[in-house]
Amino acid sequence: MPRPVITLTTDFGLKDPYVAEMKGVILSISPNAMIVDITHGVEKFNIGMGAFVLASVVPYFPRGAVHVAVVDPSVGTERQPLLIQTKGGFFTGPDNGVLALAATDQGIEHAFRITNQKLMLPKRSNTFHGRDVFAPAAAHLANGINAEEFGPEIHKFKKPQFARIIKKDKMFIGEALYIDSFGNIVTNFTLKELDSLNIRTEVKVKIMRNKLKLRLCRTYAEEGKAKPFAIVGSHNFLEISINQGNAAEYFKIKEGDRIVIYHA
Amino acid sequence: MPRPVITLTTDFGLKDPYVAEMKGVILSISPNAMIVDITHGVEKFNIGMGAFVLASVVPYFPRGAVHVAVVDPSVGTERQPLLIQTKGGFFTGPDNGVLALAATDQGIEHAFRITNQKLMLPKRSNTFHGRDVFAPAAAHLANGINAEEFGPEIHKFKKPQFARIIKKDKMFIGEALYIDSFGNIVTNFTLKELDSLNIRTEVKVKIMRNKLKLRLCRTYAEEGKAKPFAIVGSHNFLEISINQGNAAEYFKIKEGDRIVIYHA
Amino acid sequence: MPRPVITLTTDFGLKDPYVAEMKGVILSISPNAMIVDITHGVEKFNIGMGAFVLASVVPYFPRGAVHVAVVDPSVGTERQPLLIQTKGGFFTGPDNGVLALAATDQGIEHAFRITNQKLMLPKRSNTFHGRDVFAPAAAHLANGINAEEFGPEIHKFKKPQFARIIKKDKMFIGEALYIDSFGNIVTNFTLKELDSLNIRTEVKVKIMRNKLKLRLCRTYAEEGKAKPFAIVGSHNFLEISINQGNAAEYFKIKEGDRIVIYHA
Repeated sequence: MPRPVITLTTDFGLKDPYVAEMKGVILSISPNAMIVDITHGVEKFNIGMGAFVLASVVPYFPRGAVHVAVVDPSVGTERQPLLIQTKGGFFTGPDNGVLALAATDQGIEHAFRITNQKLMLPKRSNTFHGRDVFAPAAAHLANGINAEEFGPEIHKFKKPQFARIIKKDKMFIGEALYIDSFGNIVTNFTLKELDSLNIRTEVKVKIMRNKLKLRLCRTYAEEGKAKPFAIVGSHNFLEISINQGNAAEYFKIKEGDRIVIYHA
Repeated sequence: MPRPVITLTTDFGLKDPYVAEMKGVILSISPNAMIVDITHGVEKFNIGMGAFVLASVVPYFPRGAVHVAVVDPSVGTERQPLLIQTKGGFFTGPDNGVLALAATDQGIEHAFRITNQKLMLPKRSNTFHGRDVFAPAAAHLANGINAEEFGPEIHKFKKPQFARIIKKDKMFIGEALYIDSFGNIVTNFTLKELDSLNIRTEVKVKIMRNKLKLRLCRTYAEEGKAKPFAIVGSHNFLEISINQGNAAEYFKIKEGDRIVIYHA
Repeated sequence: MPRPVITLTTDFGLKDPYVAEMKGVILSISPNAMIVDITHGVEKFNIGMGAFVLASVVPYFPRGAVHVAVVDPSVGTERQPLLIQTKGGFFTGPDNGVLALAATDQGIEHAFRITNQKLMLPKRSNTFHGRDVFAPAAAHLANGINAEEFGPEIHKFKKPQFARIIKKDKMFIGEALYIDSFGNIVTNFTLKELDSLNIRTEVKVKIMRNKLKLRLCRTYAEEGKAKPFAIVGSHNFLEISINQGNAAEYFKIKEGDRIVIYHA
C-alpha cells in the first residue's frame, strides 16, 4: 500500500526550527507518512499568495493526499482551525482563506471546525498551531481517522480575496497575481479573456506606466533576448516575461499591481 | 515496521551539493531511512545557534531517531567525531558542543568517540566529515549497529557556551538567544525569571538603548499593529515581537546582544 | 525491497510551486518513490553549474537511482528531451549538456530521445517540461519501465562547456569552477596539475590581480584566521579558501574567472 502523502505550505522559511517541528510531530503520530514540502517561502502573512501556490500544486498530487497550509497572522485569536474534506483529498489550516481556493477546485464535500483536543498535541501553545493543531490533524487523517471526528461540521469558511477581472469596453482590468523567482509576471487573465478580445498573436498591455504591444509566444525562448513578450504559462494564466531576463524587475511591478489588456 | 528517522542540521545552506552528498551516502547504506532536514540555514560556524535549533526540534521527533548535526569549523583537526546514545535517540557530529544541549535534554546514557574506520566511507577527506564520517555513522545506527561498535566510550565532551542569566537586585540580565525569520527576538528568559519578578501582565525591558514597558500577550495578534510586545513563545522562552512587524530590525538587535528585564 | 530513489536538480528555487508540482507528478505515478533534492539553487539558466553540481553528487547515490536535472533556458524549442542509461543509474532532462558530465562518469550504456507521449503527462505545456515530461519519465523509470520504451536511441548529445586547462611553460591556466556558500573557490585544477608542477607544501597563484604564495593545507582550520590558503577539497579539486572567512568575496572573484598556478 502506498504511504499516505502529507504536503506542507507555510510562510515559515527554512532557517528556523518551525517546519522541522511540524515534521517531527507528524512522524511521531504517523511514522510512515510521506511528507512533501510545497513551499515555506510564502511571503510572510500573505494569505493570498499561500492560497495561490497551494491551488497551483494540489492538482498534481495523488488523490487522498492531506494538505496542510499555515499562513496564520491571527494564530491564537478567534480565527478557527479548519479541516476540509474534498473529493481529491483533505485540507487543514487556519480558517482565513489560505485553504479555500485549492479545496474548492478539488470539490468540497464537508468542512469541520477542529475542536477535538484528543487529536491535538497535549500541550498547546497560543503561537504555533501549525505544530500543535494542524500537524497532528494531518497525521491522524493520514492514519485513517475520519474527518467528522475532529469537530462539528460547519457550512461557512473564509475565502481569499483576489482582485476580480473587470471588463470595460474593449479591455480587461486585472492584476499581477504572482511574481515567480524567474521574474515572470503571472496575471489573473486566462484564455477566456484572450478569446473574448480575439487575441491570437499579439496582445496590447498596460503595465505600470508602459503601454506595449507584446508578441503572444508559445515558448520562453521564442522572442529575442531582453525583449518582453506574453505567454500562456504552465498554469493557464497569461504571463508577461522576458527571455532569460527578469520581467518583474524590468517593469518594477509587484504582486497586486494593476495590469490591463486591450483588443490588439 | 516504521522506517528509521535520520535528521540533519548543518550550516551548509541549500545551494551547494554538500547536503545531497550526505543523503546519498545515507541511502547507500540504509536504503529505507527516512531523512528529515531540520535546517541547513544555521549561521556559518555558529555552533551555539546549531545547538539551540537542534534542542528546539528534537523533543518533537519519535524515540529512536538519529540526529546528525554538522557545524564544524575545526573539521579535520584534533576535534573528535562524537556519538551520543540517549534515552530518546542517537546524536552524531563533531565534539564541539553542537550536540550537547539536545542530547542532555534527552537523557544521556553513553558517549563514544568514533574511531572504527569500517563504519566510515572508505575514502575520507579532511574537509567533509559530514559526508565521510557522520552520515555513514547515522546510517549504520539506523541499520541497528550498536553504538559501542563505533569506538571507545568517553566520559567528557564539549558543551556549547551560552550566556548565563545574571540576577541583580530586582532585575535579570540575559541575552537574545535567537532571532527568527519573522524578526521575533527569542530571549533566554523563561517563566522562572518572570515568576521570580512577579511579572504577570507587563514587563519592563531594556533592549539596546531602549527602556520600554511591554504588554505580556498570549498571542501574536493581540497587541495593535506595529507595537512591540512580550510573549512566552512556543519553546517557553520570553520573546519580544511586533504584530506583523520585525522586532529585531526595529530594535537593531542581533543574537548575543544583552537584554534586561525588571520588576514591572 | 528498497524504494526507488529519484533525485532532482533545478534552477527553480524553493519559493515557487514548480518543484512541488514535479514531486506531485512523480508520486502520482510512482507512489513509493523516494525523492531527494540535490539542489534547486543552481544559478538560473547556468547549465554548466547544474552539470557540475550533479556530477559532484551522483557518485554518492545508490546504483539504479534516477537523476532528473532541469536547467532549461530553451524549453519548448527544438532542444530534445533526453534519457541516458548508465551503469550507475538513469538520467533525464533537456539535451543541453546538463546531464552529460555526471552521466559520462557513471558509464553511459544507451541514450534515447523521449518521444513516447504515453509516458508524459496527457496535457503538456510548452514551458514546463520538468513537470510534464521529465518528472513522469523519472517516475516510470522508477516503476521499472525500460529505457528503450521512451523513444528512439540516439548516439549524440550535448556536452557542457567548461574551460580547458592550458599548460604554458611552468604554469597552468584554469578557472573558478564553482563558488560555494562558504566562499570557497573551487578551481578546475586537480592533483594531476599540482604533481606536474611538483607542488607539495606551497602554491603560487595568480587570482584576479593578486599574485600570492599560498600554503597548501590539509584542513580548513590549519592556517590562521583571515589568511588565504590552498587545499585539495572533498571533490579532489584545488580550492582557495580563508579559515572562517569568505575567499570569493575577499578576492572579488566569480565563477568562470581565470586562475593561474605556477611552480612554487
